[in-house]
Amino acid sequence: MKNTILVVGSVALDSVETPYGKVVDALGGSATYFSVAASKFASVRLVGVVGTDFPKKYVKLLESHKVDTTGLEIVDGKTFRWAGRYEGDMNSAKTLDTQLNVFQNFNPKIPPVWRSTPYLFLANIMPELQLKVLGLMNQRPKLVICDTMNLWISVKKNVVSKVFAKSDIVIINESEVKQFTGMPNLLKGARKVLKLGPKWLVIKRGEYGVLLIGRTGTYCLPGYPLEHVEDPTGAGDTFAGGFVGYLAKTGKNDAKTLTNAVVYGSVVASYNVQSFSLRKLAELKSSDIKKRYNGFKTLSCFY
Amino acid sequence: MKNTILVVGSVALDSVETPYGKVVDALGGSATYFSVAASKFASVRLVGVVGTDFPKKYVKLLESHKVDTTGLEIVDGKTFRWAGRYEGDMNSAKTLDTQLNVFQNFNPKIPPVWRSTPYLFLANIMPELQLKVLGLMNQRPKLVICDTMNLWISVKKNVVSKVFAKSDIVIINESEVKQFTGMPNLLKGARKVLKLGPKWLVIKRGEYGVLLIGRTGTYCLPGYPLEHVEDPTGAGDTFAGGFVGYLAKTGKNDAKTLTNAVVYGSVVASYNVQSFSLRKLAELKSSDIKKRYNGFKTLSCFY
Repeated sequence: MKNTILVVGSVALDSVETPYGKVVDALGGSATYFSVAASKFASVRLVGVVGTDFPKKYVKLLESHKVDTTGLEIVDGKTFRWAGRYEGDMNSAKTLDTQLNVFQNFNPKIPPVWRSTPYLFLANIMPELQLKVLGLMNQRPKLVICDTMNLWISVKKNVVSKVFAKSDIVIINESEVKQFTGMPNLLKGARKVLKLGPKWLVIKRGEYGVLLIGRTGTYCLPGYPLEHVEDPTGAGDTFAGGFVGYLAKTGKNDAKTLTNAVVYGSVVASYNVQSFSLRKLAELKSSDIKKRYNGFKTLSCFY
Repeated sequence: MKNTILVVGSVALDSVETPYGKVVDALGGSATYFSVAASKFASVRLVGVVGTDFPKKYVKLLESHKVDTTGLEIVDGKTFRWAGRYEGDMNSAKTLDTQLNVFQNFNPKIPPVWRSTPYLFLANIMPELQLKVLGLMNQRPKLVICDTMNLWISVKKNVVSKVFAKSDIVIINESEVKQFTGMPNLLKGARKVLKLGPKWLVIKRGEYGVLLIGRTGTYCLPGYPLEHVEDPTGAGDTFAGGFVGYLAKTGKNDAKTLTNAVVYGSVVASYNVQSFSLRKLAELKSSDIKKRYNGFKTLSCFY
């Protein structure tokens, strides 16, 4: 219980094309990637919604990873679907189609016994829903970590600000920091977000790695150089899963633990992009994680 | 002598506008930035050309930094001038004006006693001239390091390939690796360049830092996060100066020394962009270098 994470986010069926192939209606969604990644380190409780068309094998995949799906609501209708294509350097997806389906009316319900979960990850959903989930908890969780997206910053900046203010750690893309603050300098922007309340910002920079900024320190991990990237979908959520999973596993949140959590998040994310959907992530063993953790050490072996 | 570097490149007068101000006919040029940065670590011999309008105070500035300007030819005409503007995130310059002037007919002359200099840096000049300089040396230098630019890759790729083949270390921008190889994946591109002959590639990624790739290892240093960037001009040449300077100072070129050289290059480059022209770089003390070297350690303080 004390190492358990509650995640609220999307569960989706993704159709993705990249130079290396394509998948149709593959398992996807922020809560999905997060859960499976986090499950490598801690127990996970998932709150989300799918339609009656959601394949049972995907529920089984989640459950085989210690992910408790009691909170995965199945409602009449079709599951959230996203279709996208990656080209060239594959750094950003071109969205081909989005069908919100049952996700459009997602109203997160937290099972009563889950309302004291110590670690809460608010994946990218409408910020009002993120606030609602926080309000449903019996007490403030030990650690609240949130994500968001450019759409919400663009249309609901004030609500996003409230979510940031109530979070301990904000996980955010580099471009979103600039968008949210209007500051072209990333560090200045980061300091502005920190003033809202969160103790730490985890700034994702895609293939360039992660910048961790708090009031007391700044740390920077480069991205793991990969010769083969097959499908970048879910990299950010997988990172968040490894990051929060490691924090939950250790039960600590000092700077040293956070920097290590950034490495573990980067390790699982770097594996995840090497195959479509969750194929590689699902099969990932602790020996694989250990191996690439050491790879990161060698990579950063300066001085 | 055994720690001395010979650099052949441009000496220019730069007019630069950024959100923080502007300078007109300020000291610039690849060989200039390189020399002053390298002089913090080793002795430097500069080969370049300027016009009769080149201010004496700039020659004095170079000489005050142990930069031997015997090879700085002064010919009738005007000095090479470049004008540019940086906006927004200041990651790339908009060139407003280029006047090659006396640099157009630059024909590097190496003083006979300089032809056995052990460290040779071929800054970004026409690749035929880089090959010519190599041919003028009495014997192959202990270490040949080269730079180039997108223009030469675009119009003289075959000659650039020859320069790479004859170099021990190629310092190159990330985008230039992709341009040169036509490969969207940086690592695959890097391996292709390595096959031409150089032992190491030092790939500059702007604010994201540096990737060092050799046949036997890959190392990655993030960029130093800066809240104030005043003028990015010369960052790459300054980096090269610190990098080669440290190699010359130590006299070694094993992987460990190279990774440290990347840190020292990044240290001087990170200072350089914090002021216009060479203002900050010229005043840089060894205590400043030590301080930011330790800053890099803290920044990368994972595990």
